[in-house]
Amino acid sequence: MISIIPIESIGEVGRGHDLANTLATAVGEVGAVEGDVLVVTHKVVSKSEGAVVDLSDDPEEHLRLVESEAKSIIRRRGSLTITETRHGFICANAGVDRSNAQPGTAILLPYDPDRSARRLRDRVYHHLGLELPVIISDTFGRPWRRGLTDVAIGVAGIRPLMDLRGESDHMGRTLDVTEIAVVDEIAAAADLVMGKSSMVPAALVRGAPYHQGAGEATELIRPPNEDLFR
Amino acid sequence: MISIIPIESIGEVGRGHDLANTLATAVGEVGAVEGDVLVVTHKVVSKSEGAVVDLSDDPEEHLRLVESEAKSIIRRRGSLTITETRHGFICANAGVDRSNAQPGTAILLPYDPDRSARRLRDRVYHHLGLELPVIISDTFGRPWRRGLTDVAIGVAGIRPLMDLRGESDHMGRTLDVTEIAVVDEIAAAADLVMGKSSMVPAALVRGAPYHQGAGEATELIRPPNEDLFR
Repeated sequence: MISIIPIESIGEVGRGHDLANTLATAVGEVGAVEGDVLVVTHKVVSKSEGAVVDLSDDPEEHLRLVESEAKSIIRRRGSLTITETRHGFICANAGVDRSNAQPGTAILLPYDPDRSARRLRDRVYHHLGLELPVIISDTFGRPWRRGLTDVAIGVAGIRPLMDLRGESDHMGRTLDVTEIAVVDEIAAAADLVMGKSSMVPAALVRGAPYHQGAGEATELIRPPNEDLFR
Repeated sequence: MISIIPIESIGEVGRGHDLANTLATAVGEVGAVEGDVLVVTHKVVSKSEGAVVDLSDDPEEHLRLVESEAKSIIRRRGSLTITETRHGFICANAGVDRSNAQPGTAILLPYDPDRSARRLRDRVYHHLGLELPVIISDTFGRPWRRGLTDVAIGVAGIRPLMDLRGESDHMGRTLDVTEIAVVDEIAAAADLVMGKSSMVPAALVRGAPYHQGAGEATELIRPPNEDLFR
């Protein structure tokens, strides 16, 4: 049995806000236990780190910002730009996001989401004495399938992939290729309580299977020479 | 708060097995309530529908089967074939799967997973008097990101996309493009209790937000003319 517990009402987060302290208090209040995974939407991380810029409604200005945030452009059509971010993630508009931003501003991706995740984990440990793995999530589209789902863009204390290769299924047959993106599945699960227009910027996921350990979300990026769809 | 409850030990499923009856009994035993979503891995659905074929370890034979199951080939590299299935889903090897199949056999996708989902929903209602939405899941890879995640390939009683366009975020700003693939997020969440090598072919997801109603998983397929990555 898995439980997904919303972390609500941490209040408005601005630059310099001590997000780790606020989250640690909120996580303590909902009764976090060893093994829980803390999922945090990147928006509050970006806001607390000051990754927010002024942006008018001018589409040209938006495009210039997207281009300045992108390492490369993968595809364009109309106002949609599919980009590679500086971290190597492929997503729309280099992560430039005006939802839940103050009018006239846009939220950018955290500069180094894995580092942000490690800092949150360390600070939560300092406050609570609990080593909770941390996942920083964002909402990405995908080719071929309509609709958005949440994925991990930063992680700490959790291996992003669960490698089941070499394990056998219940028929005794060795599983061919079964590397599960467990942090993406946990991020998607957490989004079910976080929603998009609500004030739930974080969640605890209890009872999920994962391997503890060092790991970075950038490990999830398929090497370009193995990728058939760039 | 969301709970994900594993449905275990429904026993071995073969052709003609009354899966709906078995699942309804198991779902009743774990105490399903109104609003729960029943997620079922497609493998048991395919097995109960006889969507299983003989397949040797000969790679040529495997490729012929994949080609016969595919509507079109999207990309090839080495032994990997990215295909469009007859339903329109894009995935590796047209869904031909030897994991958890009897040696010398392969499991195919259900012929019409949306129809399978509707039948399961109707039969569970008949047994329990509960109208539980049903999601039939499969494990797909994706471009750009390593690792597999579970997605919905058949649904009943649940709208596959939650359209938040037109709703406003907490700043009062209208959200631009926020159509959430909620059935994929629920499928991913359920996979956290189902695993790959285990005997957990189904799960109940309790407390997830969704819209009831008619809907088909094929609505998730991005129309080819809007798709930048075919």
